[in-house]
Amino acid sequence: MIDLRSDTVTRPTPGMRQAIAEAEVGDDVYGEDPTVNALEAEVAALFGHEAALFTPTGSMANQIALQLVTPRGTELLCDADAHVVTYETGAAAALGGISTRTWPAVGATIDAEQVAAMVRPDGYHAVPTTAIAVEQTHNRGGGGVIPLATLRELRRIADDAGLRLHCDGARIWHAHVADGVALAEYGALFDTLSVCLSKGLGAPVGSLVISTSERIAAGRVIRKRLGGGMRQAGVLAAAGRYALKHHLGRLADDHARAARLAEALAPFGVVAGAVRTNIVPLDLTKAPYDAPTIAAAARKEGVLVSVLGPRTARLVTHLDLDDAALDRATEVLTRVLS
Amino acid sequence: MIDLRSDTVTRPTPGMRQAIAEAEVGDDVYGEDPTVNALEAEVAALFGHEAALFTPTGSMANQIALQLVTPRGTELLCDADAHVVTYETGAAAALGGISTRTWPAVGATIDAEQVAAMVRPDGYHAVPTTAIAVEQTHNRGGGGVIPLATLRELRRIADDAGLRLHCDGARIWHAHVADGVALAEYGALFDTLSVCLSKGLGAPVGSLVISTSERIAAGRVIRKRLGGGMRQAGVLAAAGRYALKHHLGRLADDHARAARLAEALAPFGVVAGAVRTNIVPLDLTKAPYDAPTIAAAARKEGVLVSVLGPRTARLVTHLDLDDAALDRATEVLTRVLS
Amino acid sequence: MIDLRSDTVTRPTPGMRQAIAEAEVGDDVYGEDPTVNALEAEVAALFGHEAALFTPTGSMANQIALQLVTPRGTELLCDADAHVVTYETGAAAALGGISTRTWPAVGATIDAEQVAAMVRPDGYHAVPTTAIAVEQTHNRGGGGVIPLATLRELRRIADDAGLRLHCDGARIWHAHVADGVALAEYGALFDTLSVCLSKGLGAPVGSLVISTSERIAAGRVIRKRLGGGMRQAGVLAAAGRYALKHHLGRLADDHARAARLAEALAPFGVVAGAVRTNIVPLDLTKAPYDAPTIAAAARKEGVLVSVLGPRTARLVTHLDLDDAALDRATEVLTRVLS
Amino acid sequence: MIDLRSDTVTRPTPGMRQAIAEAEVGDDVYGEDPTVNALEAEVAALFGHEAALFTPTGSMANQIALQLVTPRGTELLCDADAHVVTYETGAAAALGGISTRTWPAVGATIDAEQVAAMVRPDGYHAVPTTAIAVEQTHNRGGGGVIPLATLRELRRIADDAGLRLHCDGARIWHAHVADGVALAEYGALFDTLSVCLSKGLGAPVGSLVISTSERIAAGRVIRKRLGGGMRQAGVLAAAGRYALKHHLGRLADDHARAARLAEALAPFGVVAGAVRTNIVPLDLTKAPYDAPTIAAAARKEGVLVSVLGPRTARLVTHLDLDDAALDRATEVLTRVLS
Repeated sequence: MIDLRSDTVTRPTPGMRQAIAEAEVGDDVYGEDPTVNALEAEVAALFGHEAALFTPTGSMANQIALQLVTPRGTELLCDADAHVVTYETGAAAALGGISTRTWPAVGATIDAEQVAAMVRPDGYHAVPTTAIAVEQTHNRGGGGVIPLATLRELRRIADDAGLRLHCDGARIWHAHVADGVALAEYGALFDTLSVCLSKGLGAPVGSLVISTSERIAAGRVIRKRLGGGMRQAGVLAAAGRYALKHHLGRLADDHARAARLAEALAPFGVVAGAVRTNIVPLDLTKAPYDAPTIAAAARKEGVLVSVLGPRTARLVTHLDLDDAALDRATEVLTRVLS
Repeated sequence: MIDLRSDTVTRPTPGMRQAIAEAEVGDDVYGEDPTVNALEAEVAALFGHEAALFTPTGSMANQIALQLVTPRGTELLCDADAHVVTYETGAAAALGGISTRTWPAVGATIDAEQVAAMVRPDGYHAVPTTAIAVEQTHNRGGGGVIPLATLRELRRIADDAGLRLHCDGARIWHAHVADGVALAEYGALFDTLSVCLSKGLGAPVGSLVISTSERIAAGRVIRKRLGGGMRQAGVLAAAGRYALKHHLGRLADDHARAARLAEALAPFGVVAGAVRTNIVPLDLTKAPYDAPTIAAAARKEGVLVSVLGPRTARLVTHLDLDDAALDRATEVLTRVLS
Repeated sequence: MIDLRSDTVTRPTPGMRQAIAEAEVGDDVYGEDPTVNALEAEVAALFGHEAALFTPTGSMANQIALQLVTPRGTELLCDADAHVVTYETGAAAALGGISTRTWPAVGATIDAEQVAAMVRPDGYHAVPTTAIAVEQTHNRGGGGVIPLATLRELRRIADDAGLRLHCDGARIWHAHVADGVALAEYGALFDTLSVCLSKGLGAPVGSLVISTSERIAAGRVIRKRLGGGMRQAGVLAAAGRYALKHHLGRLADDHARAARLAEALAPFGVVAGAVRTNIVPLDLTKAPYDAPTIAAAARKEGVLVSVLGPRTARLVTHLDLDDAALDRATEVLTRVLS
Repeated sequence: MIDLRSDTVTRPTPGMRQAIAEAEVGDDVYGEDPTVNALEAEVAALFGHEAALFTPTGSMANQIALQLVTPRGTELLCDADAHVVTYETGAAAALGGISTRTWPAVGATIDAEQVAAMVRPDGYHAVPTTAIAVEQTHNRGGGGVIPLATLRELRRIADDAGLRLHCDGARIWHAHVADGVALAEYGALFDTLSVCLSKGLGAPVGSLVISTSERIAAGRVIRKRLGGGMRQAGVLAAAGRYALKHHLGRLADDHARAARLAEALAPFGVVAGAVRTNIVPLDLTKAPYDAPTIAAAARKEGVLVSVLGPRTARLVTHLDLDDAALDRATEVLTRVLS
């Protein structure tokens, strides 16, 4: 099977497996796992922040960050397609008691003034806005990259209104590679970030929250409450350190393959917007069949596609797909779309 | 002082005070208050529903309804200016664990297809949408009335997607009077409604949730948990019954006065949209002063105005304002805006 | 019907009805109801505290206080029969996220050292204890009065461990009358108190939270979130002020009648413990019939009794019961128990 | 350092590391990780249940189970020292909205009739009890084993009252080994169980919830909401499978070593109760120094001890401690206690 559903499906490489097997570990609930500690320090440094916290998933990393910047009973602004209000099982409200209002999602494009107009001041009558969240790159936005200028504009809006700014940076590595913006440059713009090791970077499990030492100390308690205080988590962190060292640079290959795939499918009029990173979003409104039908047909020929809606689908390139697999997938999808 | 801030400021009339003083009462926690029971039955009947539940506030009525139709961890869609996500202190998320995504508010105008496109199916990955809420009339939408045709379209969308439809009907009485739509006709369109007795109708305290007997029975437990299980609440319900009997018809006067006020202020270019009910929304972008300055100047001359934002304000007509008061307020506001 | 189920069933007297009808009112959401403001100031002063907040129910008053003194994720200690963990629909956990551990209830008797041994220090591993709650008088504890010495001991324990102490004082008026302890003396011992106007005092609706100005300001937001921010609540507060003025002293009559009733029932061996206030708890283990059977038999003869368990019941004296009613009830209960 | 603080500190053995390195994995969010699936099936079968769910921690496993058996707003009964109300950061209340009342903890001894007397029926007035939780073996209860007869009595009580029974079985393996009760025999008594692989069994990370297929399907959504939906979790599950195969039998060695240690310390009068499994609880009331002082002194000589209170401490034997280490630790502790 050639799996184009998501970059979450990657399996550890032999080198990564060896790193896992040899990991030096300790009890991380006591703060004594040297590999976890090293990973947290390295990732914090990459983004120019004081501290980081290892979590079993990106959802937990996001939810810890949101609980840190948006007190219960206050409001977070984000776009209507953001992962934090779409794919995290309602946790922001259900566990964090966080109110959300959303602006309409248009890929990775953000109208900063529209966001500014939604902010409500602290007060007894209206729910006060306390944070804004953005997603870089944007998953449902086709892997789009929010321009640095837009992020700076949002930072200014947040500062003017006394808000915190969170970045769901599960795929921020891709933005870094695509736009050549330093991770620390991104880091400087946000109060909290989450980053994921088990998507494009190819580690089996693990994400991190990044922020100040004070927030991360509070986040450690939230992580324990959510059930994320693992013991010898160094076996996972070792894979994450390996991934950062060996797989960050190669994301450019995934981007190139996604671009090639998009180009091949362009004649069918189904590629939704410019492909900037490793995601090829498909709008099948003009296709001969709907998304589930096309996915089923591709599956029969050994290619897995992610269905996002009746007429929308997604193809994702990643570590486990080489040129040969891409060629084969292109051939199958071309046939299926014809 | 002539108080144009809100229709919540009305004081009970002599007749209403007498009704309160003579109220037959019992312990409503035991379900034994005859006046509460009568009010609940009457209001349920007005809207063609099986049952209703008396609550101390409109916020509690809305929150009970939302908890009934939107299970914790699922999603409610509403507009970004809706009372339920603006003025209820984040209760939907903080107490109900309800996730919200919002469409951009344009007064009482709703693009039903835009709403339909936001609905997400039940599923493991995405947060399932389970309810849509509308507000009739729309408070921040300048007292606008959502057309019956739009509500029917939303009902169809809800039915197609298996969603519940809630109406925040705090001021639905005004829509009924303005558009001549029967309350039962509105009632038939919604799974749950909240209605308020202490705004335009002039009762001191009290709202109701309206729905099926089964939901209202569950709502009774939610009301108790929120701390709304009052004892001899008949003293309040008596005022509500009096208000329904004597003050519903006279809302037309408030609407006429609001229209007259809007007409008088029209030359200043500050009236934001058509005035349909008892609210005159002001957009002071082109006014010589900002909203707090204008409100302060009016206050000095004995007229109270509600400030909603730096350049937005609101004037509301109600039971305690007669023609003379309106004339006086018009004169003051005309002077202040010059 | 002679209603001995609870002191919550009392109906407003003619004098109280007049006070309600003549109440001066305003919009309490804006802080402008003079009667509410007066009541809040008077009650705060009675207990020697800075401020008080009017609420529609005792449950809401307790829950606001608990949210103020026990941050989400921390722990409250109370007895296993306390109203706050028994009769408030799980609100402390469900809405406040407050963890509870309980000591075994033995009427109003508290082993302070047992409580002290349960306290857990702040820390990353164990849930930190942040507050202790007591109930004065104790409802399920048969209206028992916690001795002042015990309360002082608990205050010392709380101070030593840096905890807050809350008093569910729904019936603290009875303790004040029974033990002759000044309300301000009780007030000085607690960080927060709730008191109820609609039980022994006979008002139709209303309770208050009492604490510092800072806490009460925060409590006002919590009250709004819970849906307790009423408008012209002065119609209720007027009844409360009347009750405080006219009905506090007369509680001694209720106590005397309860004592007389207990004496009359003593020969049947069913009175559970000494009767100190207005509650006569019945342990029907040795009675010829179980509690529901006895309650049904009494009801047939016009006397209502509260069933608390298969073999436990409760008789409560109050404002609406005079000597004649007591005599009649005594006669019926004597016959039923024979 | 000889680490007697907890059995959570164990590090993977070479054999286990090899199992991890060679693990067959897939994306468990899609249900496609074969090693996770195999582990879940095996553990469910061990306990005679339909299904199991892998989680990153024992706390998450417990909290998922509690949310499954104790609906928000209802009540769980457990002992006052139970892990679920002590060491899980208040999650039951803070995240699950679960009300708790507790019976006094006396090691692993449970007075079933005392528990039965605490149960409250479903109802509008009192918070309904819906579940009882026990802990086998009991952590703060010195590793004590609840007798099978007691568990059966609790099962009968639960059945009579229509309650669910949960077992926090983080160390149920030790009860199985100590009492010779089959895991399936335990399994048959409970509606839900949690078991842990990273304590005595020595895996680095991982626990499981065990129940019916229907509950586990619902638990999968709860796990995702809590942030426990990991991707290639097979790297952890492989260690768990290895642990079950190779380390379950050897727990008897840990028990024997704990018994030997207890015997050696007996002359100091500090061993609190009979040592049945791998925990030696210390009551230092009669010791020359308090717990922190003793722990500090032992640490200086290379032995780590867990401090649970001012005068209570805990020694735990485990996989990483052989006879030589025990002898050395015994020698140090003997000296420190002298």
